[in-house]
Amino acid sequence: MGEVNVSHEELRKLAAAKLIWAGLDAHHAGVVADVLVHADLRGVSSHGVLRTEHYVRRLHEGGLNKNPSFSFEQTGPCSGIFNGDDGLGHVVAKNAMEEAIKLAKNSGIGMITVTNSSHCGALSYFVQQAAVEGLIGVAMTHTDKIVVPFGGAKPFLGTNPIAYGFPAKNHKPIILDMATSNVALGKILYAKEAGKEIPEGWGVDEQGNATTDPEKVSALTPFAGPKGYGLGMVVDIFSGLLAGAAFGPHISKMYGEYNQQRKLGHYVCAINPTFFTNKEEFLGSMDRMIDELHAVKPAEGFNQVFVPGEPEQIKEEKQLREGVLMTETVYQYLQSTE
Amino acid sequence: MGEVNVSHEELRKLAAAKLIWAGLDAHHAGVVADVLVHADLRGVSSHGVLRTEHYVRRLHEGGLNKNPSFSFEQTGPCSGIFNGDDGLGHVVAKNAMEEAIKLAKNSGIGMITVTNSSHCGALSYFVQQAAVEGLIGVAMTHTDKIVVPFGGAKPFLGTNPIAYGFPAKNHKPIILDMATSNVALGKILYAKEAGKEIPEGWGVDEQGNATTDPEKVSALTPFAGPKGYGLGMVVDIFSGLLAGAAFGPHISKMYGEYNQQRKLGHYVCAINPTFFTNKEEFLGSMDRMIDELHAVKPAEGFNQVFVPGEPEQIKEEKQLREGVLMTETVYQYLQSTE
Repeated sequence: MGEVNVSHEELRKLAAAKLIWAGLDAHHAGVVADVLVHADLRGVSSHGVLRTEHYVRRLHEGGLNKNPSFSFEQTGPCSGIFNGDDGLGHVVAKNAMEEAIKLAKNSGIGMITVTNSSHCGALSYFVQQAAVEGLIGVAMTHTDKIVVPFGGAKPFLGTNPIAYGFPAKNHKPIILDMATSNVALGKILYAKEAGKEIPEGWGVDEQGNATTDPEKVSALTPFAGPKGYGLGMVVDIFSGLLAGAAFGPHISKMYGEYNQQRKLGHYVCAINPTFFTNKEEFLGSMDRMIDELHAVKPAEGFNQVFVPGEPEQIKEEKQLREGVLMTETVYQYLQSTE
Repeated sequence: MGEVNVSHEELRKLAAAKLIWAGLDAHHAGVVADVLVHADLRGVSSHGVLRTEHYVRRLHEGGLNKNPSFSFEQTGPCSGIFNGDDGLGHVVAKNAMEEAIKLAKNSGIGMITVTNSSHCGALSYFVQQAAVEGLIGVAMTHTDKIVVPFGGAKPFLGTNPIAYGFPAKNHKPIILDMATSNVALGKILYAKEAGKEIPEGWGVDEQGNATTDPEKVSALTPFAGPKGYGLGMVVDIFSGLLAGAAFGPHISKMYGEYNQQRKLGHYVCAINPTFFTNKEEFLGSMDRMIDELHAVKPAEGFNQVFVPGEPEQIKEEKQLREGVLMTETVYQYLQSTE
């Protein structure tokens, strides 16, 4: 299977066109395409335009609301509930973070649970929204079960990612976006798409044994055993139970039940540093921390110490200039007119 | 080196007496002893009364304020800054969480950065304060550098633990308390004290090579590589930079500079579920999640799937009844009258 190089502008247009063709309004389609291409640009192809076909199918079969009416209920000075009305999670989460940012600017903190949402793509997008405004961003989302609990043979939690965004002064924001499994399911989907083997330790088969064949993966393992398991549960509680949504095994499948609305929950939070310390000093210290980390002697086999999200940021700058490297089959799908 | 079994009441009395002898007032000494014995009861001896000698020395040499005046400045409806006046971190963090709990009860969220603090012991204690009040608790603290960044040969961040506490209905709260290193430094100190080897992967020596001799450990590794590194940085930003405190290599040493006040920062947060969802449903779902996790088929080599903190909770119940198993030298120190 070949790879092609496509400009980010073209990718955005093609993905949006597919979604509009599936019935989504142009504004929402544009936001979804922007979140997807954000992931592709950062080299996180697993959460990029690769997923367009999935959303299109779900829009067609009724599992996504083409014309959602979002609503936001503020429940306290710094808290609220955002109802996504079963729209595309990318747009829902972006709008919810906008509300969190408003609260944080006025009152120091904006903490919001999101209900009636769906798959929202790469969380890095939403925490970056906060970081570019000089705020700290936090985002979590639960996903359907695929990860075994520590000590368990069968999956219970999802890959349940968590993301943080921190502003700096002269440096770009630090963006940490990580699954609580050893790897994101998307990496296995991408390996499947690319016809590549996966490293041992990423997944287990139906019988709970390790496998390197992405086609045979039946469940993933949490990172660092009890720690990833614990943090995965934190994510399911904040983005699921605290949003009044389902947990673990009761979360509707991403791949399957295409006519069912998924009713996913998310958690977004923005924190205003000025309510805790001197903002200029904070931003200056962020810069110094980044500079000093860059100066740490690299370990054998490494050229440099990076801050979280920095390799993705470097990739983004490169691919903005040179185009996005992607699998041909995905590009062919996006270009197709069926 | 032998082990002895001591009742938790006796341990609490002995630890408090040592601290009072070192000049701490009886109330503060009682709180510190309670936090230490909490850790011992849960089997986390590394953060238990083993550390009393350290605090006593620091009190003697001037690195801890024997008579701190705490102050709390509310900076917004849900935020504030707690100044520990260089007192013992256990008392500081407990008082700060009490303020966070008050804010969360009134306004949904209480998010507090703590300044001018010192080593605060096991974070599980503070998130439990929130959980037993029906709130979600979050706590973080930075510590002095001992963990290499991912890709680095030299330490930069501390073991920087993070803890979460979640209330349930009929079940005990879920308490997750974890270092962002593969293991807490305390486990290595405990192995040193017990004269035991450590497993490979816990630490590296001066040259950055793996070692199983706790005496030779010069730095620890972050859990799951970039993920533990990223989360360790999150902790340093929330509890350090956001509190206007130092970061990584600039944090004063725990073991050393005993006449210097450490000026550590912490982060504590309490979240009121009633501001996000129906509380009774939330607590009921927590119970169901715990019950369903208990019912997951165990993996080979495991008898049961536990929720985070449950093995520690079982240990606590056992040791409350039967006494705390601890190393003889620590007990001898506590009994000594020098």
